[in-house]
Amino acid sequence: MRTAAERALGVHRVLEPAGVLPQAAHRLDADPAIGPDEVRISVQRLNLDAASFRQLSEAHAGDGDAVRAAVLEIIRTRGKMQNPDTGSGGMLIGVVDAVGPGSPLGLSVGDRVATLVSLTLTPLRISDGLADWDGRSEQVPCAGTAILFARSIAAVLPGDLPDAVSLAVLDVCGAPAATARVVANAGARSVLVLGAAGKSGCLSLAAARAAGATELSGLVRNDSEAAALGATGLADRVVVADATDPLAVSAAVGAPVDVTVVCVDVTGAEHGAILATAEGGTVVFFSMATSFSAAALGAEGMAADVTMLVGNGYTPGHAAMALELYRATPGVRALIDPRVQG
Amino acid sequence: MRTAAERALGVHRVLEPAGVLPQAAHRLDADPAIGPDEVRISVQRLNLDAASFRQLSEAHAGDGDAVRAAVLEIIRTRGKMQNPDTGSGGMLIGVVDAVGPGSPLGLSVGDRVATLVSLTLTPLRISDGLADWDGRSEQVPCAGTAILFARSIAAVLPGDLPDAVSLAVLDVCGAPAATARVVANAGARSVLVLGAAGKSGCLSLAAARAAGATELSGLVRNDSEAAALGATGLADRVVVADATDPLAVSAAVGAPVDVTVVCVDVTGAEHGAILATAEGGTVVFFSMATSFSAAALGAEGMAADVTMLVGNGYTPGHAAMALELYRATPGVRALIDPRVQG
Repeated sequence: MRTAAERALGVHRVLEPAGVLPQAAHRLDADPAIGPDEVRISVQRLNLDAASFRQLSEAHAGDGDAVRAAVLEIIRTRGKMQNPDTGSGGMLIGVVDAVGPGSPLGLSVGDRVATLVSLTLTPLRISDGLADWDGRSEQVPCAGTAILFARSIAAVLPGDLPDAVSLAVLDVCGAPAATARVVANAGARSVLVLGAAGKSGCLSLAAARAAGATELSGLVRNDSEAAALGATGLADRVVVADATDPLAVSAAVGAPVDVTVVCVDVTGAEHGAILATAEGGTVVFFSMATSFSAAALGAEGMAADVTMLVGNGYTPGHAAMALELYRATPGVRALIDPRVQG
Repeated sequence: MRTAAERALGVHRVLEPAGVLPQAAHRLDADPAIGPDEVRISVQRLNLDAASFRQLSEAHAGDGDAVRAAVLEIIRTRGKMQNPDTGSGGMLIGVVDAVGPGSPLGLSVGDRVATLVSLTLTPLRISDGLADWDGRSEQVPCAGTAILFARSIAAVLPGDLPDAVSLAVLDVCGAPAATARVVANAGARSVLVLGAAGKSGCLSLAAARAAGATELSGLVRNDSEAAALGATGLADRVVVADATDPLAVSAAVGAPVDVTVVCVDVTGAEHGAILATAEGGTVVFFSMATSFSAAALGAEGMAADVTMLVGNGYTPGHAAMALELYRATPGVRALIDPRVQG
């Protein structure tokens, strides 16, 4: 028998190994029958974590059918969508179709919601074989069921935005919220975003500006991204460099900044971020491809007195803030809209 | 030709892949001939990172000869002691035997020093086949040469302490310095240390106390550690739990704390640390066994509004602070001395 606190975290859905939390589990029970404190969602769309989708795509050489088969197999064997290689998941969108009498989430049957907890801990069952997905985009139209626990978080989708936009924005809503908090708390003036033309990157630039930063630099990987970002005005300066080449990053950025936000979804960006950050500054790692030891030992090895934060996907109010930044910032819309498959 | 800034970071010693910093390199050039800005150390003792030594020991079922052979092979093939599995290294002690005319480190030939940058980025050559080491302890007596760069950090060993003690303390000196800073900046009252009977754990408790924390909890894995820690008075409360079992940690700790410091050298401690920390609190991850994605997704999955720090092995003044805590705190000495092989 599980305590209410344990049930709230979903421990009762863990099949193996026993006693861990759902995110650490190898396998979850995705049975659509809900307990008294649970909510069932009829799933309409998954949004795979960028690092996860990239890994799957590369592992299967861009073969969409193979990627689809791999995702199906992960969900079937694990009872959740957690890439064994990257450890990451993503999020989903759907309609509430059953609410246990003891659920504290305040949801009603028929609400259209996005889950703001990771797919890595969400019991998930797919019923359509992902037949409508070509395996070539991180947004996955699908049918199936997902379960929310008492301590999960879901956002009711706003009526004024297309679902795909809401999903894309909410998927990365932790990044702008954390960026805003760090910039405000530190009174930071200069902010660098690595991967600034991406979803979390452009939202983080907008959040940094709103939080009072006055010298915004956006680092991107090539000239076409530079042109796109430059046209938005989100950054005061756009630089092009390979984020995984620390010396190139440092040379491109020049004078070190107060706060660096890492939004690139590739491995090896830790050292460049540290080198680009001033003594006493802060690096916020939002990429799921971040290596803990590379960050920790890199800073030590360079005798860099920087504060390094593990980007926490949850900050109170993060969903509303990200959606509002999207609505209020033409530059953010200009970068996110083309990435969203209708 | 490398710039002086690149040479200061040791980029000229990287053999592959080209252009990365030494810590990220697969292989370094450990040639004992030094450049004008380098320092050569005649190595006397390595101190392997705890997570690395544990992994090697477990992989070879505690067979000391096999562990010794594995360490030798890593150093021979990589030109540095970086465990490919854990990504971590350790540190070393030795005597300065050559100083380039342009070295800014202020060292002189004959100085006895410990390196405060990781072995993962230190060019290292072993000349005695580790013949004096039995492969059963993380402290490795040896002969060989190591290279320091212009931006490396080394501490001259204090005359009043045995070398093995200095090495053991300096190896973990980042943890107490960072703990003290976090506690002071946050005005934290309650602090929990996971792995509190270990080297970094007991120093972190002492640092937290010195920084003003008033409710110190130490979590250890068994009754013998609890007895040892309890006898020191470093913690106001000692609890026993498996740090990798989040629900057990949470139950043992009870009311969540302001700051949690993770010093256990095993995987899977992220979720327990997050659960044990109050909303708005801070988790400092010092274990090299920390998983970035487990921390990031765990906090999000539990909707936990906690700040999570990647423990930075470098904070200005860290070496002097750790040595002073050792000297001034009988409880710290009582826990560290038995772990040190004379």
